[in-house]
Amino acid sequence: MVRRGRVFSGARPTGRQHLGNYLGAIQNYVKLQDEFQCVYCIVDLHALTTLEDTHLLRGNVHEMALDWLAAGMRPEETIVFVQSHVREVTELHALLSMVTPMGWLMRAPTFKEKVRLHPENVNYGLLGYPVLMTADIILYKADTVPVGEDQLPHLELAREIVRRFHSFFGETFPEPKARLTEIPRVMGLDGVQKMSKSLNNHIELALSPQEVREKVRTAVTDPARMRRKDPGHPEVCNVFSLHRFFNAARVPEIDSACRTAGIGCVDCKNMLADGINEAFAEFRERRADLAARPDYVQDVLADGANRARTIAAATIAEVKEKMGLL
Amino acid sequence: MVRRGRVFSGARPTGRQHLGNYLGAIQNYVKLQDEFQCVYCIVDLHALTTLEDTHLLRGNVHEMALDWLAAGMRPEETIVFVQSHVREVTELHALLSMVTPMGWLMRAPTFKEKVRLHPENVNYGLLGYPVLMTADIILYKADTVPVGEDQLPHLELAREIVRRFHSFFGETFPEPKARLTEIPRVMGLDGVQKMSKSLNNHIELALSPQEVREKVRTAVTDPARMRRKDPGHPEVCNVFSLHRFFNAARVPEIDSACRTAGIGCVDCKNMLADGINEAFAEFRERRADLAARPDYVQDVLADGANRARTIAAATIAEVKEKMGLL
Repeated sequence: MVRRGRVFSGARPTGRQHLGNYLGAIQNYVKLQDEFQCVYCIVDLHALTTLEDTHLLRGNVHEMALDWLAAGMRPEETIVFVQSHVREVTELHALLSMVTPMGWLMRAPTFKEKVRLHPENVNYGLLGYPVLMTADIILYKADTVPVGEDQLPHLELAREIVRRFHSFFGETFPEPKARLTEIPRVMGLDGVQKMSKSLNNHIELALSPQEVREKVRTAVTDPARMRRKDPGHPEVCNVFSLHRFFNAARVPEIDSACRTAGIGCVDCKNMLADGINEAFAEFRERRADLAARPDYVQDVLADGANRARTIAAATIAEVKEKMGLL
Repeated sequence: MVRRGRVFSGARPTGRQHLGNYLGAIQNYVKLQDEFQCVYCIVDLHALTTLEDTHLLRGNVHEMALDWLAAGMRPEETIVFVQSHVREVTELHALLSMVTPMGWLMRAPTFKEKVRLHPENVNYGLLGYPVLMTADIILYKADTVPVGEDQLPHLELAREIVRRFHSFFGETFPEPKARLTEIPRVMGLDGVQKMSKSLNNHIELALSPQEVREKVRTAVTDPARMRRKDPGHPEVCNVFSLHRFFNAARVPEIDSACRTAGIGCVDCKNMLADGINEAFAEFRERRADLAARPDYVQDVLADGANRARTIAAATIAEVKEKMGLL
């Protein structure tokens, strides 16, 4: 029998997910289920490191879970749960904190960046973000972590913490390996920045077809194409870049129709809205169905937490034994 | 009805306790039981901040519990337990880490001192020591913490963390107040340094009367008194300083007998050994009795952990609710 590895990934509860989240992460989460045992975690403790909008946390967790499940996570086989429901992770975090040199954390690029941006809001927990992330992964003895290029330094730090733990207390965890994932750069409706909820340049997966159409209508296109009859430049057009994901087969046709002014931006946007709506037709039905059964979603998360806790408890017992705790 | 406050205190598991521990802390722990509900914790997680001798941890916890109980802790009313048995403390530690500015921790005098002494061994957990200490105290909503003068800055830090938590999430904990305890400076047998296990200049409470006598015999006395007939100088004599604790009533008599060479150092030491042995006669019996029943001691600690956990679980539920976690 071929033993599949175990994947862990966590994402902050940012509420309703958008196209960027889907194309960058969720789609991949769903696919990985065919190859690995997967543990997917809504990391609400990480969301506290900056202490913003904590009153929205609960709603955000629920909405994100709805999107994950509607997108095709299979909770019968995959463990889907909320980080703070398994308190063993804070226990492992405290234990790992004893073997993690401060210097490693102070040199982490994301920490330095946050200190630069918000020098007035640097809490102890922010410095420890990579320690908590390491605990997240190894508590479940995951050996594989899907990451984008930009997350590689954090995973390397996790591997170093694991090696340091081993040097004190002996081999205990798999050294988690990166499963490098190409994360497409999905631009926001402003055509300038990456799609992001905080910039309000995003399209939520949960929108109705009509809402999608209205959102797409506001998208910035080729700024040089002032009039309907002007030829367009798809290579600089944000709407065109989204066609690659949602109308892949028609991309050559749209490309030439734009360049020859065969279609206008309004037509092009309608085609994109159609493409998005078609891609998420099933998703939308499943989501509506799940949203009508909030208890079911809570049950899925509770069941996920129970299964996660079973693995976690065994790991903690082993770790405490090795560290000489009772 | 007058509501007694709740005392919390924790001590690192240093194994068999010595006279310095007894006179500085344990004696006071026992006395406080008459006035407060007491929660006494063997803080094994704190013992990990320096990662030394972790293979001795379990034995050290057990020996320390024996000494505490033999000294008069009453586990029917007082909660006596081991820190790592109540994992809620690590949960509160992680949550408090989100509201504790790093600067506060970097400025703590003990942290700066440890960085100076062991720059190669500064781990994330060492920086977070005051956060874990704060979690220890407020997890049980203790309002009173017996501390020596030197611990006041740590308690002030704990109060600041509590206030900062309150400023974000509303009134939740009592601000723990110091119960200032005069901690006598008990000198070691070398007459130079404070009595301390690591300096091996200590007298363990668990020694037999004969062992106490032998230990006391090695004590350095007045260096100017070379011969039996030389007059002594009690004010510089370490053995004399211990008479104050164990032969209080006879201090004037010993003082003058020493100054007039009425007694020699050997006599004086025998009197001290007698005094210590008398003071700990009952202790020694109880300790032997407890040591013969290791399961009983484990049961006491397990029961203590259960009672601690009940309080802790309620606190954590309240904290998570206030922070917006599920």
